[in-house]
Amino acid sequence: MPSEHNFDLPRPRPLLIVISGPSGVGKDTVIQRMKERGLPFHFVVTATTRPKRPNEVDGKDYIFVSKEEFARMIEADELIEYAIVYGDYKGPPKTKVREALASGQDVILRLDVQGAETIRKLAPEALLIFLTTESEDELVRRLETRKTETAEELKLRIATARKELQRIEAFDYVIVNHDFHLDETVDTIRAIIEAEHHRVKPRQVTL
Amino acid sequence: MPSEHNFDLPRPRPLLIVISGPSGVGKDTVIQRMKERGLPFHFVVTATTRPKRPNEVDGKDYIFVSKEEFARMIEADELIEYAIVYGDYKGPPKTKVREALASGQDVILRLDVQGAETIRKLAPEALLIFLTTESEDELVRRLETRKTETAEELKLRIATARKELQRIEAFDYVIVNHDFHLDETVDTIRAIIEAEHHRVKPRQVTL
Repeated sequence: MPSEHNFDLPRPRPLLIVISGPSGVGKDTVIQRMKERGLPFHFVVTATTRPKRPNEVDGKDYIFVSKEEFARMIEADELIEYAIVYGDYKGPPKTKVREALASGQDVILRLDVQGAETIRKLAPEALLIFLTTESEDELVRRLETRKTETAEELKLRIATARKELQRIEAFDYVIVNHDFHLDETVDTIRAIIEAEHHRVKPRQVTL
Repeated sequence: MPSEHNFDLPRPRPLLIVISGPSGVGKDTVIQRMKERGLPFHFVVTATTRPKRPNEVDGKDYIFVSKEEFARMIEADELIEYAIVYGDYKGPPKTKVREALASGQDVILRLDVQGAETIRKLAPEALLIFLTTESEDELVRRLETRKTETAEELKLRIATARKELQRIEAFDYVIVNHDFHLDETVDTIRAIIEAEHHRVKPRQVTL
């Protein structure tokens, strides 16, 4: 009823939500499940130099660019951050995040721990969620199951994970992503987002 | 598996949750519904000087005390805060809140806005939730429906509510308690509590 004198309540603003955590913790699986469940979030599409696979759609799964184009994007400071994954470059374009925030929807970004720390500097009011396993042994088991790492790589990933756990203070929330409890993790992410929308002092994300 | 090397994750601690808001907003109804739904929270029992009604149980619904005993509790600083409601005294005993926190459960306290501000001073890490209506007109309608106020009292309550809305900054979260959407309000409270249990820096309540 527009004629009513509404109380001047804080207005929820779109959030910039970063899903992060050590390699092997299940970031992609969690985001995949969020998409499957049709949650009303805007998932940022990442630019990559890796070749498109037959089932992938350019602009939907990834933005497929040449190494030259990616180099240009780095030079022009067009990426939030970038990482080299198995020899290929990967990074979310700033314009994509800005467009998403402008649409009014909450924006979900998947980043490794270093990338999340970069976001904290670029957009201090971003909401950073750290996914972890309960124990180191569990993380090792998951990495071993992937069978994508050599013994040396595995050692490197574990050492990295240990260091990353020490940087958890840069994050707002931490969720233990239990095996076979994917939906619990997704529910907790939703609860965090709902709670954040009721903050008396909403986060003001600028990028 | 106790033999595993667990990550040193932040441990969730019991929260002290204050449900507050202007008179007429529906605090009691919300808490009543939380109890009906059997949520795993500890609801603090308030001491009162008003006579026990036939259906009430001493120590469960309220702690029924004489005015002399209540005066002694005030003198001995045994109450979190107290208020006079229709000539009777009402206030939650500190020991009850301490016992509840020690049990490890999240503790729910229902307080008026002034009481919530007192808690903020006593226990800065308490979680304060402000319930409100969307508009002033809606609050007036609810107060009128109660038919417990005279025209003058109603004016006083509205003036108080306006002032209270201006003190919303002292609170952590705000929820619009829509008519006929009681369960939505309860769900939001649950989401807030779940989110808070995943904070990297848990609230440390001492009282």
